[in-house]
Amino acid sequence: MDDRTAVLAANARFYKAFERRDLRAMGECWSGTAGDACIHPGWEPLYGNTAVMEAWANIFATGVPMRFVVADVVVQLLGDIARVHNVENISLSDDGEAVGRVAVTHIFIRRPEGWRLVLHHGSPIAAEGEAAESEPEYH
Amino acid sequence: MDDRTAVLAANARFYKAFERRDLRAMGECWSGTAGDACIHPGWEPLYGNTAVMEAWANIFATGVPMRFVVADVVVQLLGDIARVHNVENISLSDDGEAVGRVAVTHIFIRRPEGWRLVLHHGSPIAAEGEAAESEPEYH
Repeated sequence: MDDRTAVLAANARFYKAFERRDLRAMGECWSGTAGDACIHPGWEPLYGNTAVMEAWANIFATGVPMRFVVADVVVQLLGDIARVHNVENISLSDDGEAVGRVAVTHIFIRRPEGWRLVLHHGSPIAAEGEAAESEPEYH
Repeated sequence: MDDRTAVLAANARFYKAFERRDLRAMGECWSGTAGDACIHPGWEPLYGNTAVMEAWANIFATGVPMRFVVADVVVQLLGDIARVHNVENISLSDDGEAVGRVAVTHIFIRRPEGWRLVLHHGSPIAAEGEAAESEPEYH
């Protein structure tokens, strides 16, 4: 498997773990180090694997199950680092309408056991015509 | 200047260019390649230096001038890649109250001329008690 394919597989594994709310599988997506960081939509940044995994545990325990249609996937390989961007089209069931879209940055690092996440950063994409009234706007 | 200090200086240069609405200085912060990407709060991802710089031109031409108090800066060096996270506390004048907070991921690459941005990803941090009603929530 070439690097690009391996990174795409790691990216897909993340979404499978997220949809299944499988904390063990989610844990295996990450580097497991203090370098792990996660910024969920609307959240403060979380730093370190412990904080990141606590948040996933809370999300899986109390959040609404979600389905992801991942689109516009862009991969850039930078040696032992890989960067992925994609857009999550989120729905609440397999045949449900999309309830929101999130723009994502993933950073993976190459480890002996494969490509592992050190960053998931997701930010809501405003619906067309929707002003983010309470948020600072850059435009 | 060691790598960490140089990366912090590059990060500070970005905010200086942003505050001054100085398009030329902003251009010099970026790698200038097709690998440049920018995700502004609420926006779709922008890919490639041309699209990224067009957006800065529009933001500087039509947006509201902003002041940044940059906090919680985290730097991770990964060889010729550096990753920075910080929180932008945004106000509309030098002594104005903060109007919003944005969680940021920056990726810099080492170039002969110095550390250059290949990613700015900013996502609004919801104010306390504020539900992002129209956005998917992970919690």
